[in-house]
Amino acid sequence: MRHVPHLFLPGPWEDDAIALADEQVRHLARVLRLADGAPLTYTDGSGVTGSGTLQGGSVARGSEQFAPRPEPTVAVAVAPPRAPNRLRFLVEKLAELGIDRIYWLTTRHGEGRPPRADKVAAWAKSALEQSRGAWLVDVVGPIGVADLPKSSTLWVAERESCPPPSVVRGGILIIGPEAGFAEGEVPASANRIALGAQVLRVETAALVGATILLDRSGRLVP
Amino acid sequence: MRHVPHLFLPGPWEDDAIALADEQVRHLARVLRLADGAPLTYTDGSGVTGSGTLQGGSVARGSEQFAPRPEPTVAVAVAPPRAPNRLRFLVEKLAELGIDRIYWLTTRHGEGRPPRADKVAAWAKSALEQSRGAWLVDVVGPIGVADLPKSSTLWVAERESCPPPSVVRGGILIIGPEAGFAEGEVPASANRIALGAQVLRVETAALVGATILLDRSGRLVP
Repeated sequence: MRHVPHLFLPGPWEDDAIALADEQVRHLARVLRLADGAPLTYTDGSGVTGSGTLQGGSVARGSEQFAPRPEPTVAVAVAPPRAPNRLRFLVEKLAELGIDRIYWLTTRHGEGRPPRADKVAAWAKSALEQSRGAWLVDVVGPIGVADLPKSSTLWVAERESCPPPSVVRGGILIIGPEAGFAEGEVPASANRIALGAQVLRVETAALVGATILLDRSGRLVP
Repeated sequence: MRHVPHLFLPGPWEDDAIALADEQVRHLARVLRLADGAPLTYTDGSGVTGSGTLQGGSVARGSEQFAPRPEPTVAVAVAPPRAPNRLRFLVEKLAELGIDRIYWLTTRHGEGRPPRADKVAAWAKSALEQSRGAWLVDVVGPIGVADLPKSSTLWVAERESCPPPSVVRGGILIIGPEAGFAEGEVPASANRIALGAQVLRVETAALVGATILLDRSGRLVP
Protein backbone atom coordinates (compact mmCIF):
# COMPACT_ATOMS: atom_id res chain seq x y z
CA MET A 1 0.00 0.00 0.00
CA ARG A 2 2.93 2.31 0.61
CA HIS A 3 3.19 3.60 -2.93
CA VAL A 4 -0.52 3.94 -3.63
CA PRO A 5 -1.40 7.64 -3.30
CA HIS A 6 -4.14 8.55 -0.83
CA LEU A 7 -6.22 11.55 -1.88
CA PHE A 8 -8.47 13.88 0.05
CA LEU A 9 -11.54 14.44 -2.14
CA PRO A 10 -14.20 16.42 -0.29
CA GLY A 11 -17.69 14.93 -0.63
CA PRO A 12 -20.49 14.42 -1.21
CA TRP A 13 -19.67 12.25 -4.24
CA GLU A 14 -22.67 11.79 -6.45
CA ASP A 15 -21.30 10.06 -9.53
CA ASP A 16 -19.20 6.97 -10.21
CA ALA A 17 -16.21 9.17 -10.95
CA ILE A 18 -14.85 12.05 -8.85
CA ALA A 19 -13.32 14.89 -10.86
CA LEU A 20 -9.83 15.93 -9.74
CA ALA A 21 -8.50 19.47 -9.59
CA ASP A 22 -6.00 20.34 -12.36
CA GLU A 23 -3.25 20.59 -9.78
CA GLN A 24 -3.95 17.07 -8.50
CA VAL A 25 -3.96 15.64 -12.04
CA ARG A 26 -0.60 17.31 -12.77
CA HIS A 27 0.89 15.99 -9.51
CA LEU A 28 -0.33 12.43 -10.14
CA ALA A 29 0.75 12.38 -13.78
CA ARG A 30 4.01 14.35 -13.71
CA VAL A 31 5.43 13.91 -10.22
CA LEU A 32 4.16 10.44 -9.34
CA ARG A 33 4.00 9.36 -13.03
CA LEU A 34 0.76 7.48 -12.65
CA ALA A 35 -0.91 6.19 -15.79
CA ASP A 36 -4.60 5.67 -16.39
CA GLY A 37 -5.82 2.69 -14.43
CA ALA A 38 -3.32 3.19 -11.59
CA PRO A 39 -4.76 2.30 -8.19
CA LEU A 40 -5.51 5.08 -5.71
CA THR A 41 -7.17 5.37 -2.37
CA TYR A 42 -9.27 8.36 -1.38
CA THR A 43 -11.20 9.79 1.54
CA ASP A 44 -13.80 12.46 2.07
CA GLY A 45 -12.17 13.36 5.40
CA SER A 46 -15.45 12.45 7.13
CA GLY A 47 -14.84 8.75 7.64
CA VAL A 48 -15.34 7.34 4.14
CA THR A 49 -12.34 5.78 2.38
CA GLY A 50 -12.33 4.04 -0.96
CA SER A 51 -10.07 2.21 -3.40
CA GLY A 52 -10.34 3.39 -6.97
CA THR A 53 -8.32 4.00 -10.09
CA LEU A 54 -7.08 7.02 -11.99
CA GLN A 55 -9.13 7.56 -15.17
CA GLY A 56 -8.18 10.69 -17.09
CA GLY A 57 -8.86 13.67 -14.88
CA SER A 58 -11.00 11.68 -12.45
CA VAL A 59 -10.95 8.93 -9.88
CA ALA A 60 -13.15 5.98 -10.79
CA ARG A 61 -14.71 4.95 -7.49
CA GLY A 62 -14.32 1.37 -6.23
CA SER A 63 -15.22 -0.31 -2.97
CA GLU A 64 -15.80 2.13 -0.11
CA GLN A 65 -16.10 1.84 3.62
CA PHE A 66 -16.99 4.05 6.54
CA ALA A 67 -14.91 4.26 9.74
CA PRO A 68 -16.63 6.01 12.66
CA ARG A 69 -14.68 8.80 14.36
CA PRO A 70 -12.17 7.20 16.74
CA GLU A 71 -13.13 7.33 20.41
CA PRO A 72 -12.47 8.93 22.83
CA THR A 73 -11.98 12.38 21.30
CA VAL A 74 -8.57 13.97 21.87
CA ALA A 75 -8.21 17.67 21.06
CA VAL A 76 -5.45 20.24 21.52
CA ALA A 77 -6.11 23.88 22.46
CA VAL A 78 -2.98 25.90 21.83
CA ALA A 79 -1.77 29.49 21.86
CA PRO A 80 -0.30 29.89 18.35
CA PRO A 81 3.49 30.22 18.29
CA ARG A 82 4.83 33.20 16.35
CA ALA A 83 7.18 31.55 13.86
CA PRO A 84 5.40 30.42 10.66
CA ASN A 85 7.39 27.16 10.42
CA ARG A 86 6.42 26.24 13.98
CA LEU A 87 2.76 26.94 13.26
CA ARG A 88 2.91 24.73 10.21
CA PHE A 89 4.68 22.00 12.11
CA LEU A 90 2.05 22.12 14.83
CA VAL A 91 -0.88 21.67 12.47
CA GLU A 92 0.85 19.11 10.28
CA LYS A 93 2.06 16.87 13.10
CA LEU A 94 -1.16 16.97 15.12
CA ALA A 95 -3.11 16.13 11.96
CA GLU A 96 -0.74 13.27 11.05
CA LEU A 97 -1.13 11.87 14.51
CA GLY A 98 -4.92 11.83 14.17
CA ILE A 99 -5.85 14.50 16.72
CA ASP A 100 -9.55 15.27 16.28
CA ARG A 101 -9.61 19.02 16.77
CA ILE A 102 -7.27 21.98 17.20
CA TYR A 103 -8.53 25.07 19.02
CA TRP A 104 -6.50 28.25 18.59
CA LEU A 105 -6.39 30.02 21.91
CA THR A 106 -6.43 33.74 22.53
CA THR A 107 -4.33 34.30 25.67
CA ARG A 108 -3.21 37.37 27.57
CA HIS A 109 0.52 36.75 27.07
CA GLY A 110 0.33 35.09 23.64
CA GLU A 111 2.23 36.82 20.84
CA GLY A 112 1.31 34.62 17.89
CA ARG A 113 -1.77 34.63 15.69
CA PRO A 114 -3.59 31.72 14.08
CA PRO A 115 -2.40 31.14 10.52
CA ARG A 116 -4.70 31.95 7.58
CA ALA A 117 -7.51 29.43 7.16
CA ASP A 118 -6.44 28.48 3.61
CA LYS A 119 -2.94 27.63 4.83
CA VAL A 120 -4.29 25.54 7.69
CA ALA A 121 -6.58 23.72 5.27
CA ALA A 122 -3.67 22.94 2.91
CA TRP A 123 -1.47 21.64 5.75
CA ALA A 124 -4.29 19.54 7.19
CA LYS A 125 -5.15 18.09 3.77
CA SER A 126 -1.56 17.18 3.09
CA ALA A 127 -1.17 15.53 6.51
CA LEU A 128 -4.40 13.57 6.00
CA GLU A 129 -3.13 12.26 2.67
CA GLN A 130 0.32 11.52 4.05
CA SER A 131 -1.02 9.64 7.07
CA ARG A 132 -3.67 7.78 4.98
CA GLY A 133 -6.33 8.92 7.41
CA ALA A 134 -10.12 9.02 7.08
CA TRP A 135 -10.90 12.01 9.29
CA LEU A 136 -9.77 15.55 8.55
CA VAL A 137 -8.67 17.46 11.64
CA ASP A 138 -11.19 20.10 12.67
CA VAL A 139 -9.70 23.55 13.36
CA VAL A 140 -11.60 26.03 15.53
CA GLY A 141 -11.05 29.48 16.98
CA PRO A 142 -9.46 31.65 18.10
CA ILE A 143 -11.32 31.39 21.40
CA GLY A 144 -10.48 32.03 25.04
CA VAL A 145 -9.65 29.22 27.45
CA ALA A 146 -12.91 29.94 29.27
CA ASP A 147 -14.86 29.20 26.08
CA LEU A 148 -13.59 25.62 25.66
CA PRO A 149 -16.47 23.11 25.92
CA LYS A 150 -17.34 22.48 29.56
CA SER A 151 -18.17 18.86 28.87
CA SER A 152 -14.56 17.88 28.04
CA THR A 153 -11.85 16.91 30.49
CA LEU A 154 -9.25 19.66 30.40
CA TRP A 155 -5.54 18.85 30.71
CA VAL A 156 -3.05 21.66 31.10
CA ALA A 157 0.69 21.19 30.79
CA GLU A 158 2.45 22.51 33.88
CA ARG A 159 5.97 21.75 35.04
CA GLU A 160 6.36 20.34 38.54
CA SER A 161 3.06 18.50 38.38
CA CYS A 162 2.60 14.76 37.71
CA PRO A 163 2.03 12.87 34.48
CA PRO A 164 -1.62 12.04 33.70
CA PRO A 165 -3.16 8.79 35.04
CA SER A 166 -2.21 5.73 33.01
CA VAL A 167 -5.73 5.39 31.63
CA VAL A 168 -7.71 8.45 30.58
CA ARG A 169 -10.73 9.06 28.35
CA GLY A 170 -9.43 11.70 25.96
CA GLY A 171 -10.12 15.37 26.56
CA ILE A 172 -8.57 18.68 25.56
CA LEU A 173 -4.87 19.34 26.08
CA ILE A 174 -4.29 23.04 26.79
CA ILE A 175 -0.91 24.50 25.84
CA GLY A 176 -0.21 28.12 26.75
CA PRO A 177 2.08 30.65 25.07
CA GLU A 178 5.87 30.70 25.66
CA ALA A 179 5.33 33.39 28.29
CA GLY A 180 2.81 31.25 30.19
CA PHE A 181 -0.79 31.80 31.16
CA ALA A 182 -1.85 34.78 33.24
CA GLU A 183 -3.08 34.04 36.74
CA GLY A 184 -6.63 32.72 36.72
CA GLU A 185 -6.66 32.32 32.93
CA VAL A 186 -6.94 28.52 33.14
CA PRO A 187 -10.00 27.25 35.03
CA ALA A 188 -9.19 25.63 38.36
CA SER A 189 -11.07 22.54 37.15
CA ALA A 190 -8.38 21.78 34.54
CA ASN A 191 -6.10 18.85 35.43
CA ARG A 192 -2.45 19.88 35.72
CA ILE A 193 -0.09 17.38 34.07
CA ALA A 194 3.66 17.26 33.55
CA LEU A 195 5.25 16.48 30.20
CA GLY A 196 8.73 15.78 31.58
CA ALA A 197 11.43 17.78 33.29
CA GLN A 198 12.49 19.73 30.20
CA VAL A 199 11.04 23.06 29.15
CA LEU A 200 9.36 22.40 25.80
CA ARG A 201 8.51 24.83 23.05
CA VAL A 202 4.80 25.30 22.40
CA GLU A 203 4.68 23.03 19.35
CA THR A 204 6.81 20.34 21.01
CA ALA A 205 4.64 20.35 24.13
CA ALA A 206 1.54 20.07 21.94
CA LEU A 207 2.85 17.02 20.08
CA VAL A 208 4.32 15.30 23.14
CA GLY A 209 1.21 15.93 25.23
CA ALA A 210 -1.08 14.80 22.41
CA THR A 211 0.93 11.58 22.05
CA ILE A 212 0.63 10.85 25.77
CA LEU A 213 -3.13 11.52 25.83
CA LEU A 214 -3.75 9.43 22.71
CA ASP A 215 -1.62 6.64 24.14
CA ARG A 216 -3.34 6.66 27.52
CA SER A 217 -6.75 6.83 25.84
CA GLY A 218 -5.98 3.63 23.94
CA ARG A 219 -5.96 5.46 20.61
CA LEU A 220 -2.50 4.24 19.52
CA VAL A 221 -3.49 0.59 19.29
CA PRO A 222 -3.81 -0.07 15.54
CA MET B 1 12.94 31.28 35.90
CA ARG B 2 11.25 31.63 32.55
CA HIS B 3 13.02 34.79 31.50
CA VAL B 4 16.48 33.91 32.78
CA PRO B 5 18.54 32.82 29.75
CA HIS B 6 20.14 29.37 29.92
CA LEU B 7 23.49 29.16 28.10
CA PHE B 8 25.46 26.20 26.79
CA LEU B 9 29.10 26.93 27.66
CA PRO B 10 31.34 23.95 26.85
CA GLY B 11 33.74 23.02 29.66
CA PRO B 12 36.09 22.53 31.30
CA TRP B 13 35.76 25.87 33.11
CA GLU B 14 38.95 26.77 34.90
CA ASP B 15 38.39 30.33 36.11
CA ASP B 16 35.70 32.13 38.08
CA ALA B 17 34.46 33.72 34.88
CA ILE B 18 33.62 32.01 31.60
CA ALA B 19 34.31 34.09 28.50
CA LEU B 20 31.41 34.34 26.05
CA ALA B 21 31.66 34.31 22.27
CA ASP B 22 31.08 37.71 20.63
CA GLU B 23 27.89 36.44 19.10
CA GLN B 24 26.54 35.41 22.52
CA VAL B 25 27.40 38.79 24.02
CA ARG B 26 25.62 40.57 21.19
CA HIS B 27 22.55 38.36 21.59
CA LEU B 28 22.37 38.89 25.34
CA ALA B 29 22.96 42.63 25.16
CA ARG B 30 21.05 43.61 22.05
CA VAL B 31 18.29 41.07 21.64
CA LEU B 32 17.60 40.16 25.27
CA ARG B 33 18.78 43.60 26.53
CA LEU B 34 20.53 42.21 29.57
CA ALA B 35 22.67 44.57 31.60
CA ASP B 36 25.75 43.70 33.63
CA GLY B 37 24.78 41.77 36.74
CA ALA B 38 21.76 40.15 35.09
CA PRO B 39 21.18 36.58 36.29
CA LEU B 40 21.89 33.68 33.93
CA THR B 41 21.99 29.94 34.15
CA TYR B 42 24.49 27.86 32.21
CA THR B 43 25.46 24.26 31.54
CA ASP B 44 28.46 22.42 30.14
CA GLY B 45 26.11 19.94 28.45
CA SER B 46 27.71 17.18 30.52
CA GLY B 47 25.55 17.37 33.63
CA VAL B 48 26.83 20.54 35.32
CA THR B 49 24.47 23.49 35.61
CA GLY B 50 25.13 26.76 37.39
CA SER B 51 23.54 30.09 38.27
CA GLY B 52 25.69 33.12 37.53
CA THR B 53 25.54 36.68 36.30
CA LEU B 54 26.51 38.54 33.17
CA GLN B 55 29.71 40.55 33.71
CA GLY B 56 30.97 42.30 30.61
CA GLY B 57 31.80 39.68 28.02
CA SER B 58 31.79 36.87 30.58
CA VAL B 59 29.59 34.86 32.89
CA ALA B 60 30.60 35.18 36.55
CA ARG B 61 30.10 31.68 37.92
CA GLY B 62 27.87 31.10 40.95
CA SER B 63 26.59 27.96 42.64
CA GLU B 64 26.86 24.86 40.51
CA GLN B 65 25.47 21.38 40.65
CA PHE B 66 25.90 18.09 38.84
CA ALA B 67 22.97 15.98 37.61
CA PRO B 68 23.86 12.44 36.54
CA ARG B 69 22.70 11.33 33.12
CA PRO B 70 19.02 10.35 33.37
CA GLU B 71 18.37 6.61 33.44
CA PRO B 72 17.48 4.49 31.57
CA THR B 73 19.06 5.66 28.31
CA VAL B 74 16.67 6.30 25.44
CA ALA B 75 18.16 6.73 21.97
CA VAL B 76 16.73 7.10 18.47
CA ALA B 77 18.32 5.55 15.38
CA VAL B 78 16.82 7.13 12.29
CA ALA B 79 17.22 7.15 8.53
CA PRO B 80 17.64 10.87 7.77
CA PRO B 81 14.67 12.40 5.91
CA ARG B 82 15.55 14.34 2.76
CA ALA B 83 13.98 17.73 3.46
CA PRO B 84 16.29 20.08 5.41
CA ASN B 85 13.47 21.47 7.57
CA ARG B 86 12.45 17.95 8.59
CA LEU B 87 16.03 17.07 9.51
CA ARG B 88 16.26 20.16 11.63
CA PHE B 89 12.96 19.48 13.28
CA LEU B 90 14.05 15.94 14.07
CA VAL B 91 17.26 16.98 15.84
CA GLU B 92 15.72 19.96 17.59
CA LYS B 93 12.67 18.15 18.95
CA LEU B 94 14.53 15.02 20.08
CA ALA B 95 17.09 17.22 21.83
CA GLU B 96 14.39 19.33 23.50
CA LEU B 97 12.73 16.19 24.74
CA GLY B 98 15.97 15.00 26.35
CA ILE B 99 16.75 11.98 24.14
CA ASP B 100 20.29 10.84 24.98
CA ARG B 101 21.61 9.92 21.57
CA ILE B 102 20.68 10.11 17.89
CA TYR B 103 22.19 7.57 15.49
CA TRP B 104 21.96 8.40 11.78
CA LEU B 105 21.21 5.20 9.93
CA THR B 106 22.46 4.17 6.53
CA THR B 107 19.67 2.10 4.98
CA ARG B 108 19.18 0.45 1.61
CA HIS B 109 16.09 2.44 0.68
CA GLY B 110 16.99 5.68 2.46
CA GLU B 111 17.26 8.77 0.28
CA GLY B 112 18.37 11.37 2.81
CA ARG B 113 21.80 12.15 4.21
CA PRO B 114 22.81 13.24 7.70
CA PRO B 115 23.06 17.03 7.95
CA ARG B 116 26.47 18.70 8.34
CA ALA B 117 27.95 18.28 11.80
CA ASP B 118 28.15 22.04 12.44
CA LYS B 119 24.44 22.42 11.70
CA VAL B 120 23.54 19.53 13.99
CA ALA B 121 25.69 21.05 16.74
CA ALA B 122 23.96 24.43 16.39
CA TRP B 123 20.47 22.88 16.50
CA ALA B 124 21.37 20.70 19.49
CA LYS B 125 22.89 23.64 21.38
CA SER B 126 19.87 25.79 20.75
CA ALA B 127 17.49 23.02 21.90
CA LEU B 128 19.57 22.46 25.05
CA GLU B 129 19.38 26.15 25.91
CA GLN B 130 15.69 26.33 25.07
CA SER B 131 14.79 23.28 27.16
CA ARG B 132 17.07 24.35 30.07
CA GLY B 133 18.73 20.94 29.98
CA ALA B 134 22.03 19.74 31.46
CA TRP B 135 22.94 17.05 28.92
CA LEU B 136 23.71 17.76 25.28
CA VAL B 137 22.32 15.16 22.90
CA ASP B 138 25.01 12.91 21.46
CA VAL B 139 24.87 12.45 17.67
CA VAL B 140 26.53 9.42 16.08
CA GLY B 141 26.89 7.91 12.62
CA PRO B 142 25.96 7.26 9.92
CA ILE B 143 26.03 3.55 10.74
CA GLY B 144 24.11 0.49 9.60
CA VAL B 145 21.30 -1.03 11.68
CA ALA B 146 23.54 -4.07 12.27
CA ASP B 147 26.15 -1.84 13.92
CA LEU B 148 23.86 -0.54 16.68
CA PRO B 149 25.10 -1.60 20.12
CA LYS B 150 24.09 -5.20 20.83
CA SER B 151 23.62 -4.47 24.52
CA SER B 152 20.62 -2.16 23.97
CA THR B 153 17.00 -3.20 23.60
CA LEU B 154 15.99 -2.41 20.03
CA TRP B 155 12.49 -1.15 19.23
CA VAL B 156 11.40 -0.84 15.65
CA ALA B 157 8.27 0.97 14.54
CA GLU B 158 6.08 -1.28 12.44
CA ARG B 159 2.40 -0.86 11.62
CA GLU B 160 0.10 -3.72 12.53
CA SER B 161 2.15 -4.67 15.57
CA CYS B 162 1.30 -3.81 19.19
CA PRO B 163 2.33 -0.85 21.35
CA PRO B 164 5.34 -1.48 23.65
CA PRO B 165 4.76 -2.93 27.13
CA SER B 166 3.59 -0.37 29.67
CA VAL B 167 6.92 -0.46 31.49
CA VAL B 168 10.20 -0.64 29.58
CA ARG B 169 13.83 0.11 30.40
CA GLY B 170 14.82 2.50 27.62
CA GLY B 171 16.57 1.24 24.52
CA ILE B 172 17.02 2.38 20.94
CA LEU B 173 14.03 3.29 18.78
CA ILE B 174 14.73 2.43 15.13
CA ILE B 175 12.90 4.45 12.47
CA GLY B 176 13.40 3.47 8.84
CA PRO B 177 13.21 5.63 5.71
CA GLU B 178 9.88 6.57 4.08
CA ALA B 179 10.29 3.64 1.68
CA GLY B 180 10.75 1.18 4.56
CA PHE B 181 13.54 -1.21 5.48
CA ALA B 182 14.75 -3.88 3.08
CA GLU B 183 14.02 -7.47 4.05
CA GLY B 184 16.43 -8.69 6.69
CA GLU B 185 17.84 -5.22 7.29
CA VAL B 186 16.48 -5.03 10.85
CA PRO B 187 17.70 -7.82 13.17
CA ALA B 188 15.06 -10.37 14.10
CA SER B 189 15.86 -9.63 17.75
CA ALA B 190 14.43 -6.11 17.50
CA ASN B 191 11.03 -5.67 19.17
CA ARG B 192 8.31 -4.59 16.73
CA ILE B 193 6.05 -1.86 18.14
CA ALA B 194 3.14 0.11 16.73
CA LEU B 195 2.89 3.88 16.98
CA GLY B 196 -0.80 4.08 16.13
CA ALA B 197 -2.94 3.38 13.10
CA GLN B 198 -1.77 6.38 11.07
CA VAL B 199 1.18 6.36 8.68
CA LEU B 200 3.65 8.84 10.17
CA ARG B 201 6.45 10.72 8.48
CA VAL B 202 9.95 9.78 9.61
CA GLU B 203 10.40 12.77 11.91
CA THR B 204 6.90 12.41 13.38
CA ALA B 205 7.40 8.71 14.09
CA ALA B 206 10.75 9.50 15.75
CA LEU B 207 9.23 12.08 18.08
CA VAL B 208 6.08 10.09 18.86
CA GLY B 209 8.03 6.87 19.45
CA ALA B 210 10.62 8.67 21.59
CA THR B 211 7.83 10.17 23.71
CA ILE B 212 6.26 6.75 24.27
CA LEU B 213 9.60 5.13 25.20
CA LEU B 214 10.56 7.98 27.55
CA ASP B 215 7.12 7.85 29.12
CA ARG B 216 7.15 4.08 29.62
CA SER B 217 10.71 4.25 30.96
CA GLY B 218 9.58 6.66 33.69
CA ARG B 219 11.64 9.48 32.18
CA LEU B 220 8.79 11.99 31.95
CA VAL B 221 8.25 12.24 35.68
CA PRO B 222 9.78 15.62 36.64
